[in-house]
Amino acid sequence: MLWNMTSHYTLKALDIGINTHQEAVAYMREDCHVCRAEGFTAKSRVKINHGSRSVVATVNVVDNDVLPEGHVGLSKVAIQRLGVGLGDDVVIGHADVVASLAAVRKKVFGNPLDGTDMQAIITDISDHLYSDIEIATFLSVCAGGRLDTDEIVYLTQAMVNAGKRLHWPGREAVYDKHCIGGLPGNRTTPLVVSIVSAAGHVMPKTSSRAITSPAGTADTMEALTNVNLELADIRRVVNETGACLTWGGAVNLSPADDVLIRIERALDLDGEGQMIASVLSKKIAAGSTHTLIDIPVGPTAKVRSGVDAGRLASLFTQVGAACGLKVRCVLTDGSQPVGRGIGPVEEARDLLAVLRCEEDAPSDLRERALLLAGHVLDMAEHSGLEIAQQKAMELLVSGEAYRQFLRIVESQGGLKTLQDARFQHAETALLGGTLRSIDNRKLARLAKLSGAPSSPGAGLRLYVKVGDQVATGAPLFTLYSESQGEQDYALDYYRQNADMFVFE
Amino acid sequence: MLWNMTSHYTLKALDIGINTHQEAVAYMREDCHVCRAEGFTAKSRVKINHGSRSVVATVNVVDNDVLPEGHVGLSKVAIQRLGVGLGDDVVIGHADVVASLAAVRKKVFGNPLDGTDMQAIITDISDHLYSDIEIATFLSVCAGGRLDTDEIVYLTQAMVNAGKRLHWPGREAVYDKHCIGGLPGNRTTPLVVSIVSAAGHVMPKTSSRAITSPAGTADTMEALTNVNLELADIRRVVNETGACLTWGGAVNLSPADDVLIRIERALDLDGEGQMIASVLSKKIAAGSTHTLIDIPVGPTAKVRSGVDAGRLASLFTQVGAACGLKVRCVLTDGSQPVGRGIGPVEEARDLLAVLRCEEDAPSDLRERALLLAGHVLDMAEHSGLEIAQQKAMELLVSGEAYRQFLRIVESQGGLKTLQDARFQHAETALLGGTLRSIDNRKLARLAKLSGAPSSPGAGLRLYVKVGDQVATGAPLFTLYSESQGEQDYALDYYRQNADMFVFE
Repeated sequence: MLWNMTSHYTLKALDIGINTHQEAVAYMREDCHVCRAEGFTAKSRVKINHGSRSVVATVNVVDNDVLPEGHVGLSKVAIQRLGVGLGDDVVIGHADVVASLAAVRKKVFGNPLDGTDMQAIITDISDHLYSDIEIATFLSVCAGGRLDTDEIVYLTQAMVNAGKRLHWPGREAVYDKHCIGGLPGNRTTPLVVSIVSAAGHVMPKTSSRAITSPAGTADTMEALTNVNLELADIRRVVNETGACLTWGGAVNLSPADDVLIRIERALDLDGEGQMIASVLSKKIAAGSTHTLIDIPVGPTAKVRSGVDAGRLASLFTQVGAACGLKVRCVLTDGSQPVGRGIGPVEEARDLLAVLRCEEDAPSDLRERALLLAGHVLDMAEHSGLEIAQQKAMELLVSGEAYRQFLRIVESQGGLKTLQDARFQHAETALLGGTLRSIDNRKLARLAKLSGAPSSPGAGLRLYVKVGDQVATGAPLFTLYSESQGEQDYALDYYRQNADMFVFE
Repeated sequence: MLWNMTSHYTLKALDIGINTHQEAVAYMREDCHVCRAEGFTAKSRVKINHGSRSVVATVNVVDNDVLPEGHVGLSKVAIQRLGVGLGDDVVIGHADVVASLAAVRKKVFGNPLDGTDMQAIITDISDHLYSDIEIATFLSVCAGGRLDTDEIVYLTQAMVNAGKRLHWPGREAVYDKHCIGGLPGNRTTPLVVSIVSAAGHVMPKTSSRAITSPAGTADTMEALTNVNLELADIRRVVNETGACLTWGGAVNLSPADDVLIRIERALDLDGEGQMIASVLSKKIAAGSTHTLIDIPVGPTAKVRSGVDAGRLASLFTQVGAACGLKVRCVLTDGSQPVGRGIGPVEEARDLLAVLRCEEDAPSDLRERALLLAGHVLDMAEHSGLEIAQQKAMELLVSGEAYRQFLRIVESQGGLKTLQDARFQHAETALLGGTLRSIDNRKLARLAKLSGAPSSPGAGLRLYVKVGDQVATGAPLFTLYSESQGEQDYALDYYRQNADMFVFE
């Protein structure tokens, strides 16, 4: 990877209908010069230029009968990043050396990264110059506690700098709230935003869609209203209501994080420093000044012990402070799902029930939302936690929070009617007893196999909580799906993993 | 990745003509159940079964018009590993959890790996159960001096256990010789094997093809004779001649190494422990008892300082000893190419010239081969290095070594005639002077761009050595190619990198 070419090869671009996720792939005929000259025993990389845009792509060699001579096939993401149309000319050349890989190698050899290194790495990753295996290397040598606090700060700042940044002129304090995840159904964010903004505090909340869970806050909100708002619309909604509940992906706040997170999840690496930087960089980029972090702790949650949670909370707070962000962390019970619904529509039903103060609204979701909203109010008003929680409760009980929620939803495009899933299946307890535990991970997987979140109505409604006495034959959950195949696939998984509910 | 399915999905296999190198890829329609249920934001993995064989493949989603309903497209390597024919049924299910990834994670968190961990990892990698990003993680957390001597020993033994192992009944001592590489043209192996086996010592040499260089020993030997010998034929050749010069890839001595090395090279990681285990495991698997390691040291060689070379030599020796292999390391000059030819055919010409004691045979190649052969003879005969080198010289000068080389070649299938390349281009010095340095890496790249080693006749013949007085307009090298396009592509690179020769 040592040179730039002057004589390039011009080929015509073809969409050959392949989605390779985020890594751009160029499909090249085995008889093409570039193929022959670069050699393909390793994972060769080429630069593809089209007008002012370029992408670096991994080469896959195809049989000569797959592509007409003089053509190159491009994966979906390459087509999108280049903005090419069918048959457009693209120019293929050797990929430039990616200078920041030297910094990654420095870290491989155990040397700490400074701010300049980290910025160079993150900028190149945002620009899609790293292959997946190079990203895996970066993540691997930063995981396992190998990032010190300074490095996490540099990483956070680099991620902020690599993306867009929102500003809220005239707003002195801007609040945010984040849960590190791992608990199905734990959809407190829309409740906290409604309560806190009903109290007059600014809370422009951009959320993510699910990556490995059955629903992200953006997926659940999308069952209720439009969440695909561009920056100008977000500003309007926040000006009108003091808050928003939109999808962050439309705003490009942290393009590096979008790349990193997918490889990190595929590797199941749980890099602590990476996670802190990912969360805090998005808060800072969104213009927040104060952030509350919810850390659920439990045997099948993301954080499994109080000690780990404490260390994580301390790091969150330190890194936030170094980046000018006030962070408060709350450790919560992560032993079982929160609420009853899992999946976008089912979680939306729980939200509405809590906001409307319905009698059968899930009390655990309600209590947790009040706890977290109280913490944010206390950060804003310094009234002490007890008074702040009392205020949160009054805002909910009085209907103020619900009216505020409706104002936000109205401003984003109006309230949708929740749709029922086409297929449902009620599952009952084979042998009853006292429910001792629920495996969050397996339950989340069950909901995903049923089709959530890509089918918003898919997922499940859970009728039991840990500690309940469950009679033999009593309902455990209803599974919702949009196709018979998905229902079968999910139930098949349940049959083999019925130990996700442990009775005694 | 937590479960096995009972209800699988049967699809018909199609070769869609895509070569994805070593990572198996399954191309699945976006409307297929498995696709929908598994979700494809991350790099999903599925298990594909066909009869008693199975592969784990990464899923790429394709447009519905790319594949007929009920079909799955498979990459070349998936087809080959499954042994499927067009339209054969394959059964797709969820990929089993890869248990050894827990050991990789243990290493990510800084804990040393024991023999059991290492064996589990290497076995799973040999079985192609790791995705490329998982392999990248393993390599990354083992690079940078993060493997201690014990771990390198475990890794070496694990790699031996994961492949086939040769035995040479009745042979007390079996010799081998290895160069860690990085010097173009440094093709001493066939010379050393001919000399040492002419002295009656057993030297069954299986070599690799080029991975990133313009020629491996197997590529050069293939220009001269047949090297694709299976185990039974190798035994016959060794029984007949006491030696062989074949390609190791046909024998499957270290399947894990074949997988690891490609990702390692793509990452340019230079993992020391990994390299030692890779080299020594192949020697042990080949049944060697004594191995000589040639470590060229120079600013553009693989090892750049004497200190690094010394540490490497010490590790090679210690790990070898722990695995029951006697290792001697020789540090050699790595400042410039050896011989004049670079590329299979051109290197073969040099070999023959040395063996035939031709007057214009490259003296540096000859001297180096005698030095190394002397070391092997000294290991075998304990005669002292001076006497051993004298003996090596006599075997070469008397023609014994050449006759032995011809016996080996005859036994492998006979001597081929060297073919001339179709295109040649002579390049002269633009400005002469004293040649101060040659960049090995750039020169190797130039030879590769000309088409070596896939076109055996491609490469170059070098007319200058460091220290030479070169007149303006004097010949520097001749470039050989099999197509005009490759010649142009290579010369274009040369024009931009003429500093690969530095004159003063």
